[in-house]
Amino acid sequence: MKFDASALQRKFIALRENKLFETFVIFVIIFSALLIGAKTYAIPSGTLAFLNILDWAVTLFFLVEILVRMVAEGSLRAFFRKGWNVFDFIIVVASLIPVEDSEAALLGRLLRVFRVLRLISIIPELRVLLNAFVHAIPRMGYVSLLMFVIFYIYAAMGSMFFHQINETLWSNITISMLTLFRVATFEDWTDVMYETMAVYPFSWAYYLSFIFIVAFIFLNMMIGIVLETLQREHDAYDKEQGEGVAVEVDSIEQRTREIDARVQRIETMVEALHRRGPSA
Amino acid sequence: MKFDASALQRKFIALRENKLFETFVIFVIIFSALLIGAKTYAIPSGTLAFLNILDWAVTLFFLVEILVRMVAEGSLRAFFRKGWNVFDFIIVVASLIPVEDSEAALLGRLLRVFRVLRLISIIPELRVLLNAFVHAIPRMGYVSLLMFVIFYIYAAMGSMFFHQINETLWSNITISMLTLFRVATFEDWTDVMYETMAVYPFSWAYYLSFIFIVAFIFLNMMIGIVLETLQREHDAYDKEQGEGVAVEVDSIEQRTREIDARVQRIETMVEALHRRGPSA
Amino acid sequence: MKFDASALQRKFIALRENKLFETFVIFVIIFSALLIGAKTYAIPSGTLAFLNILDWAVTLFFLVEILVRMVAEGSLRAFFRKGWNVFDFIIVVASLIPVEDSEAALLGRLLRVFRVLRLISIIPELRVLLNAFVHAIPRMGYVSLLMFVIFYIYAAMGSMFFHQINETLWSNITISMLTLFRVATFEDWTDVMYETMAVYPFSWAYYLSFIFIVAFIFLNMMIGIVLETLQREHDAYDKEQGEGVAVEVDSIEQRTREIDARVQRIETMVEALHRRGPSA
Amino acid sequence: MKFDASALQRKFIALRENKLFETFVIFVIIFSALLIGAKTYAIPSGTLAFLNILDWAVTLFFLVEILVRMVAEGSLRAFFRKGWNVFDFIIVVASLIPVEDSEAALLGRLLRVFRVLRLISIIPELRVLLNAFVHAIPRMGYVSLLMFVIFYIYAAMGSMFFHQINETLWSNITISMLTLFRVATFEDWTDVMYETMAVYPFSWAYYLSFIFIVAFIFLNMMIGIVLETLQREHDAYDKEQGEGVAVEVDSIEQRTREIDARVQRIETMVEALHRRGPSA
Repeated sequence: MKFDASALQRKFIALRENKLFETFVIFVIIFSALLIGAKTYAIPSGTLAFLNILDWAVTLFFLVEILVRMVAEGSLRAFFRKGWNVFDFIIVVASLIPVEDSEAALLGRLLRVFRVLRLISIIPELRVLLNAFVHAIPRMGYVSLLMFVIFYIYAAMGSMFFHQINETLWSNITISMLTLFRVATFEDWTDVMYETMAVYPFSWAYYLSFIFIVAFIFLNMMIGIVLETLQREHDAYDKEQGEGVAVEVDSIEQRTREIDARVQRIETMVEALHRRGPSA
Repeated sequence: MKFDASALQRKFIALRENKLFETFVIFVIIFSALLIGAKTYAIPSGTLAFLNILDWAVTLFFLVEILVRMVAEGSLRAFFRKGWNVFDFIIVVASLIPVEDSEAALLGRLLRVFRVLRLISIIPELRVLLNAFVHAIPRMGYVSLLMFVIFYIYAAMGSMFFHQINETLWSNITISMLTLFRVATFEDWTDVMYETMAVYPFSWAYYLSFIFIVAFIFLNMMIGIVLETLQREHDAYDKEQGEGVAVEVDSIEQRTREIDARVQRIETMVEALHRRGPSA
Repeated sequence: MKFDASALQRKFIALRENKLFETFVIFVIIFSALLIGAKTYAIPSGTLAFLNILDWAVTLFFLVEILVRMVAEGSLRAFFRKGWNVFDFIIVVASLIPVEDSEAALLGRLLRVFRVLRLISIIPELRVLLNAFVHAIPRMGYVSLLMFVIFYIYAAMGSMFFHQINETLWSNITISMLTLFRVATFEDWTDVMYETMAVYPFSWAYYLSFIFIVAFIFLNMMIGIVLETLQREHDAYDKEQGEGVAVEVDSIEQRTREIDARVQRIETMVEALHRRGPSA
Repeated sequence: MKFDASALQRKFIALRENKLFETFVIFVIIFSALLIGAKTYAIPSGTLAFLNILDWAVTLFFLVEILVRMVAEGSLRAFFRKGWNVFDFIIVVASLIPVEDSEAALLGRLLRVFRVLRLISIIPELRVLLNAFVHAIPRMGYVSLLMFVIFYIYAAMGSMFFHQINETLWSNITISMLTLFRVATFEDWTDVMYETMAVYPFSWAYYLSFIFIVAFIFLNMMIGIVLETLQREHDAYDKEQGEGVAVEVDSIEQRTREIDARVQRIETMVEALHRRGPSA
């Protein structure tokens, strides 16, 4: 019996494109997520052993599924050129690493949690959403940098002046930035303020100016993203409106140009006729 | 005496369309709401008995009102085809169930609370608002799914690593999701964080990354809804602007085409005249 | 000596329109605000007596100023037809009521606080802002009504089920609504929830559904206001763009119509010439 | 050897424009920021001495760099005419002031913190962002004034009625405004409310009305900024679209005018021909 690689590839492509197969994969991912959730409950060891068997079955299925897609793609290079394939491959391989000793077992379970992320790679709408998120990041780059500079300066001031008041909150610049993030989320920020106001009565100016500046930058960031998104939608709308007013105006522009040329020629001829008239 | 069903129907239609009757129904609904509110206060048993009588009067009135509308509609099928009628019918029938023993009395009172919702079904503007809400739900479907996936993964990680630190907050994945929702609302989230930071000093990364991702997805959801609404308003505006610039440009386009044809014919004739000229 | 009323009126109109006088009035209002602020500090009784004298001077000045504006206006009816005049009149007259006994002194001081609001009536930009606020209210009317219905239903349920758990938070429907408002602002809402979850383990569904519904309606309200404002700005922009593209397209439309008529006449004549041609 | 000032200036201009030099300056600023951060940690005195030497090196470098830019600019007046140069100059000079005694050392370190702000003056994108912030301020001026008036009135009322209930929160108008800001951020605001409700049971109306008014004004401010930004983007878009529809419509308008004139002339001539016809 001769092994026909391209026949296998064709079969695997058919399998990959199969709607039923895709639905089954989604079902397995959800089932895998439920397994992970179930293990966080206190369960008898008998059930746990059964869950572990199911877990290995899921791991095996994922391995088979990714192999199917690899073969279907034809070459490894073509397979790994797509970012989402790399993403899936890493998740599947990571959950294959045997981590049975109690120490690393937690890590093994952690790696299995990320299998839920495969839901994003397999549902196109979620993939589109994630891409939109990734594209919005550069727009926020400089605003985030500015925000970081503000946090850094305030944190430096905070740990300079307040570190003797409360070591837990202001001992160094990293801890101070965490405290300032807490203030930015309004989480018990007055407790932090009243404590330092007991020593520096005017330290409320520090907190209020920080809150105003951060709120202002955050507002700006939000508006920036909204505008960016509106602009993109607007451009897409303009493009699809290609058969609209703009195109029509364009054709009118063209036609009036032709009419103008033609009328000029007529004028010349009529003028000649007119001049010739009396001589006729 | 012969019973004239269609005459009764005509009378009931007249009653249903009567503005005064509608206002009275709204008044009864508000009165029913006040009754429910009054019962939450500590009141003497004599007054309570009186309130119960009023309550039954309201129930009876609602029953009569829905029967009037049923008869007015003509057939039961026509009546139940409208969603809001089904909504009203369920609320009215549910409050008819006799629940007098102390055990189920609470349930009976709960069912009566929902009669306030009839305010939504009877005031057209509120109905429009609710419809708008319902229509916005699918748009948010995938974003909500993404949000749920994020919550699920973080909750799984949380209950894995932190369940020994605080059983109340992290004992299993459901409780962990509730705790994470609390973190997402910034409600005493630093207390949760400081507790786990005592064991895992770098667990602030877990909370901060969660807050950033959730805030980011929420922002995206908000912008999505705004854009959706803007688009809908824009389309409605375009439609109503039908007699505007677009139509005018269209008619200009048509007219220049006709002028062009006519000018071409003139040119041909004048050219002929011109060529013939010398021979004249 | 004859009293010339109209000469006085003319003088008062000149005074009212005087930029310097207006600035002085603003200065007195701010001074009055500072007086009110100063009195909240612990001050020696000698200074307090002095402040009281200044306070009466301010009251007197306000009285004179409003009389000047009344005379300038000509008739009382014309004066009171403007809403802001009524507003000023009430504030000035209210602070005239003598409340010297210690009991009502607080009320008297309270009435004087509202004099700061005259800052709004005298600065045109603030007046515009306040008008914008007032105009936005009806737009939010039905959404607020819907929000109130939601609060009422949840408060009724809350006081039914939880009033035995915590009398302070859930004793009756009014207190319950206040507690729910607290939950809506995320203020220690988990404390409220954990307390009821000890009795009803599934009461988290009550809080989460409430938070989602209220956040959703709030979002809708916000978008509604933004759209309303955008629409108003857009209309204003369209109006001022009157000399823009739309007008030009209109004139092109008119001109092509004329050209068309003229070209038709030419065609008729040229055709006649053409037909006549051979016979010439 | 003759000193050639203009040759030096040319060299310094070249140095200032050098991309590598700019990158090095950014690197030094970041290094300076890290130095400031490092000092907030508990470090052995040996390392601290080393850090101090590095700190003086950075100060020296900044001094040299600003002198290079001064010379490159040509004249001091030209240098100080640019706002960002003044900004840099103040920061550099302020960190030169020798503050070695333990008392003022803190101030000296504080001044050095502001050197991180030079990151804003040297990265063009951050400069653009900061300019945008500064330009948005006047737009918010009157709204902020209105907000302040509201805070002032509520704070005056608060300290009048509640100062005997809690001296820490309501002792005078400044402290009351701070307390109200706390309420506006929803930070443990119910604790503040429950305390005063024990004395004045209806004081919840004070807090709720305050929260509604402030939230409403804040919303308005946010929308104002969004509209302002949208308008600016829209104008910029219109300007850059100069070669778009508007220009085309303009050229069509011009051409139809010419065609009209020409066709009129033709009509006159053809009419003359026509009238003359029979006589031919």
